[in-house]
Amino acid sequence: MIQAQAQQNNHITVQQNNVQLTFTLDEQGRPLYTVQYKQQPVIQPSYLGFKLAEDSLLYKNFAITASEQTSADEQWQPVWGETASIRNHYHQLTVHLQQKTTGHLLNLVFRVFDDGVGFRYEFPKQASLRYFIVSDELTGFALAGNHKAFWIPGDYDSNEYLYSTTPISDINNTEVVKKATDIAVRTAPDPYAVQTPLMLKTANGLYINIHEAALVNYPAMQLHVNTKNNELTATLVPDAAGNKAYLHAPAHTPWRTILVSDKAADILASNTILNLNEPAVTSNTSWIQPMKFVGVWWEMQTGKSTWSYSDFADSTDANGKLIPNGRHGANTANVKKYIDFAAANNIKGVLVEGWNTGWEDWFGNWKENVFDFVTPYPDFDVNALQRYAQSKGVQIIMHNETSGSATNYERQMDTAFRFMAAHGYHSVKTGYVGRIIPRGEHHDGQWMVNHYERVAKKALQYHVMVDAHEPQRPTGLHRTYPNWMACEAGRGNEYNAFSNGNPPEHETILPFTRLMGGPMDYTPGIFKLKGYSADVPDRQVHSTLAKQLALYVTLYSPVQMVADLPENYEAHKDAFRFIRDVPVDWSDTKIIEAEPGDYLTIARREKGKSSWFIGAITDENSRTATVSLSFLEPGKQYKATLYTDAANADWKNNPEAYEIKQVTVTNTTTLTLPLAAGGGAAVSILPL
Amino acid sequence: MIQAQAQQNNHITVQQNNVQLTFTLDEQGRPLYTVQYKQQPVIQPSYLGFKLAEDSLLYKNFAITASEQTSADEQWQPVWGETASIRNHYHQLTVHLQQKTTGHLLNLVFRVFDDGVGFRYEFPKQASLRYFIVSDELTGFALAGNHKAFWIPGDYDSNEYLYSTTPISDINNTEVVKKATDIAVRTAPDPYAVQTPLMLKTANGLYINIHEAALVNYPAMQLHVNTKNNELTATLVPDAAGNKAYLHAPAHTPWRTILVSDKAADILASNTILNLNEPAVTSNTSWIQPMKFVGVWWEMQTGKSTWSYSDFADSTDANGKLIPNGRHGANTANVKKYIDFAAANNIKGVLVEGWNTGWEDWFGNWKENVFDFVTPYPDFDVNALQRYAQSKGVQIIMHNETSGSATNYERQMDTAFRFMAAHGYHSVKTGYVGRIIPRGEHHDGQWMVNHYERVAKKALQYHVMVDAHEPQRPTGLHRTYPNWMACEAGRGNEYNAFSNGNPPEHETILPFTRLMGGPMDYTPGIFKLKGYSADVPDRQVHSTLAKQLALYVTLYSPVQMVADLPENYEAHKDAFRFIRDVPVDWSDTKIIEAEPGDYLTIARREKGKSSWFIGAITDENSRTATVSLSFLEPGKQYKATLYTDAANADWKNNPEAYEIKQVTVTNTTTLTLPLAAGGGAAVSILPL
Repeated sequence: MIQAQAQQNNHITVQQNNVQLTFTLDEQGRPLYTVQYKQQPVIQPSYLGFKLAEDSLLYKNFAITASEQTSADEQWQPVWGETASIRNHYHQLTVHLQQKTTGHLLNLVFRVFDDGVGFRYEFPKQASLRYFIVSDELTGFALAGNHKAFWIPGDYDSNEYLYSTTPISDINNTEVVKKATDIAVRTAPDPYAVQTPLMLKTANGLYINIHEAALVNYPAMQLHVNTKNNELTATLVPDAAGNKAYLHAPAHTPWRTILVSDKAADILASNTILNLNEPAVTSNTSWIQPMKFVGVWWEMQTGKSTWSYSDFADSTDANGKLIPNGRHGANTANVKKYIDFAAANNIKGVLVEGWNTGWEDWFGNWKENVFDFVTPYPDFDVNALQRYAQSKGVQIIMHNETSGSATNYERQMDTAFRFMAAHGYHSVKTGYVGRIIPRGEHHDGQWMVNHYERVAKKALQYHVMVDAHEPQRPTGLHRTYPNWMACEAGRGNEYNAFSNGNPPEHETILPFTRLMGGPMDYTPGIFKLKGYSADVPDRQVHSTLAKQLALYVTLYSPVQMVADLPENYEAHKDAFRFIRDVPVDWSDTKIIEAEPGDYLTIARREKGKSSWFIGAITDENSRTATVSLSFLEPGKQYKATLYTDAANADWKNNPEAYEIKQVTVTNTTTLTLPLAAGGGAAVSILPL
Repeated sequence: MIQAQAQQNNHITVQQNNVQLTFTLDEQGRPLYTVQYKQQPVIQPSYLGFKLAEDSLLYKNFAITASEQTSADEQWQPVWGETASIRNHYHQLTVHLQQKTTGHLLNLVFRVFDDGVGFRYEFPKQASLRYFIVSDELTGFALAGNHKAFWIPGDYDSNEYLYSTTPISDINNTEVVKKATDIAVRTAPDPYAVQTPLMLKTANGLYINIHEAALVNYPAMQLHVNTKNNELTATLVPDAAGNKAYLHAPAHTPWRTILVSDKAADILASNTILNLNEPAVTSNTSWIQPMKFVGVWWEMQTGKSTWSYSDFADSTDANGKLIPNGRHGANTANVKKYIDFAAANNIKGVLVEGWNTGWEDWFGNWKENVFDFVTPYPDFDVNALQRYAQSKGVQIIMHNETSGSATNYERQMDTAFRFMAAHGYHSVKTGYVGRIIPRGEHHDGQWMVNHYERVAKKALQYHVMVDAHEPQRPTGLHRTYPNWMACEAGRGNEYNAFSNGNPPEHETILPFTRLMGGPMDYTPGIFKLKGYSADVPDRQVHSTLAKQLALYVTLYSPVQMVADLPENYEAHKDAFRFIRDVPVDWSDTKIIEAEPGDYLTIARREKGKSSWFIGAITDENSRTATVSLSFLEPGKQYKATLYTDAANADWKNNPEAYEIKQVTVTNTTTLTLPLAAGGGAAVSILPL
């Protein structure tokens, strides 16, 4: 049901089902908007506008010159994803404004969906505003109360923080940033800035999510929090000169998104951010293949082997050649072991990090020329390994770590991608660990946002899939670039290897925050949950083994790492069966139950198949997940294999205790899955 | 005669002929140096050292751990240049210092030549200093008096200023910078900073030149002037983060050079800056060919035609194609006209600017993606013109204007050079008009210094010669990269086209300043000296026609533009004969007479031939140049053709009045050349 109400003076109301948007121009010609859900205020009157370098008042003295309303209801099919088809159903209001003092034109475009609102600013082509610099975006989000917030600091260079759960009034990132010494680069000058997606819960049970969609040619938006009155304001990541964005009309900002529901599950089920992104730039997508992958990686993370061939850049022999340290992970024999393991276990990819020269001296010195992306270490035989992998039906995944030196990567990128094409690489994992070069730029500024997009485009041209580590957090651009499979851009499982790790609640928050914009390469699947760290023997993952299985369902990604060492999987072949079976592309997804910070149960149907997979996880509290299988095909029998925490399991003292049982189920079955503290459950449901 | 004196305590003296250098460590462990010439002080005791980000005191608490002295006397042959062979004759002192507080090692290496001193800092490989950031270089140049200085502002982004001639005490660039509205980008935050090469003349007739040699991986050095006490201090161009240089030991700075003589001619004859540069990186140099060139260029500078195909980027027809303005210079027919003219007149190159798309909207908006360097306008037929030029024995010169967007150029550079290789381009003129991107960087900062070197290296790899416009000013690197033919990096003849131009003294100062570091693409040879500007009918070049001829000799470059329009040369075929004849590569050079700001007469012998060419120029005052031809081969007769100002010529009222006469000369002849106000004379001397 779409209700479009006529404009009354300077006030326009648009409603779609439970969501109502109002636009108003106040007596000073300032644009304002509100959002309501079921008559409850979500966003109270909030200002819109900008300060430009040449017009610091582009937020008032406006008049409405026209407005239009349209609507859309369409279905589209993503190349891969959580569902085979997506409904895009919205009512659109476009308000054409003109600033009376300058003549500048500015449009506001609102799309009202069943589960929220997206809006963006458009700068039409106009004589008085051609090239311009955005000094500040003033978009407000005036919240209606002191909601519970799940937040990480608004850091220009990192999303790899643990989440804090506090009332808005308690937000202050100072201590969080200070203590996060395990993060390579931290730049968080505003103690009251938080990153998006920001997840909120109101006292009366509304779930609100604020983020952005289609971040292109613009800096990432963070939110400045007024802890006194619950007002949030957009704050953009600056460039080296302190400016925010360089635009050329016609231009538009990304969409600002506000999702809202009285059911947490609706937030996770929302496709609004994807719907606000542009369709795929190509229909030639048959080469884009979601996959699981293993990697010469966890062994480096845990200190068993090294990325580098030598321990020091100046460990050279009389001929100037590096002296091997004997612990280099990416050696031909070791990579073959991973290829064998992948081939034997229905895993299509093998990531190899540390294959190329430069790792002796790659990090921390703001050094511009680190890697050339094409020169292997002497013990890594590129051609032999490609032939070996191909003979086993496995792909080796290229690794291009830039150490933050984007200028160097851009110089080498043509060469790097030609190398991939020449050697049969169809996937690349990129990395940006370190301070950005161009110096003064940030990971989340406009220049780097454009860089990541350039990489995705270049990869598309070479038919290469991208998994970007340390970029800006996603905003649904994988719809437009379907080869941009996943990003890290968050605190992954790796933190359990080299830091005190992630608490049990972490994976129950990620879907409501970081994952709202797109898939995360979280690297689940650690089976050896204690005693894996060479340096810190008592280090452990804050998870049970069964929960590690569940993450393959609860943390959606079209590229899922099978992150642990082959020998640790060999030790639990029965449990590993789930990882072998679980797919990475889906026809359907049901959010069974969800509460950010507490628990999450999701069921998904394999793409084009009638098999279902369930993942259920909890935080530090044990619980029982109850799953009605009513989504199964009526009258059909299935074999369900339940991988659950053992009765005596808990993440801290007994993480590797699990039980596996098989039962026959139908659409009338209700499963009861016991979850230990820090535990989870995984279920495969295959048609009989 | 080399006199090396033993170290006495913390004091070391080195002398070569008239030049004496002392090094001293004072009681606080601060290194100091002095320079004397014939017992006269040139540099009074001046401090040496740095502030680093991690050690703000790297200028004191040093001890001398060792010192060494060596000497060299060798000849080497440049690929091209002002002489066929160059003597490198110096005495070297290396002082090894260790900072007592930190253990840091720092070496000072001095080379004492017959005509001055070069010194640099070396940071040996050491445990306590690996990667480091230079916050400030503190090198002092304490002058012995309030000398006359020929200076331009210390601008981070431009060398295109007119010279001011003032006592040191009057140096203040504020007004100069403010008034230089004809310069695209000006960044001169320090009113007391001047650019190098800085030319000085003392009250008692010493000529002193301060510059640097071999500027690699370091920002350009400017000089901060203490107008109270005549002390100059090195000041480095900062990067976007405010830092000066990122170094990795072992590392060294460029050489700081102090040339001194009681004869101005010795400054011009000096090869010390070249000698302090590294030898050529390649011996495969047969493809490097000095040449004269014409260009589709002056017609755009003067408003007769346009670089752009259309007048506005948004002048498009119904199909989105640009609507031609009918005045596009780089059209196939027009380019053929230049090719014909070049072929008929012993000119090997034809520069074509405006051949590629993007010129409608290329400048002034700090826009990153302007040009792609490979897409021609529809009226420029790349292949047909290449074939036509080749059939005529002429080369087309590629033009790569970056509009300051170095990041964009670096991304496209592989493609651009592959395009050159595919289409037979052997030369490229690069350009950097506009604010630099990476934003916050400057034309003369370390990042861009590295960029220009990368371009030279890439060009070398593709066997392409480079003529760089708007880079940092040269420091002799054309010895190391002999394909790096010339730079603009100064105020060229073009300013006579689009501004009030250059006064008559300008070309008498350039050889003592800008040209000390290397050749300049000044673009001499304007024959139509009035009435050439489409927009400003009374605009004129501040020069006589004969002086324009003389500049081919007085302003050395291995690539010399024949800058005026073919029809303007056709109107003066007799005078044009000199330009046809004059070569661009020399076996020998004699500085006959010289006074900065006043006059200059140079004779040069053609490379491998016995022909000589003389250029004599004056400032706004008429004068007579007297040239003894004693350098000619004894007993041999030559035909001299004298191109001189007519008796009634002067730059302002009668610039195109010249006389040509031929005389037979021998090595006993003395020529008397009349130079009008703003005039000059050119002589060719060919063996009979």
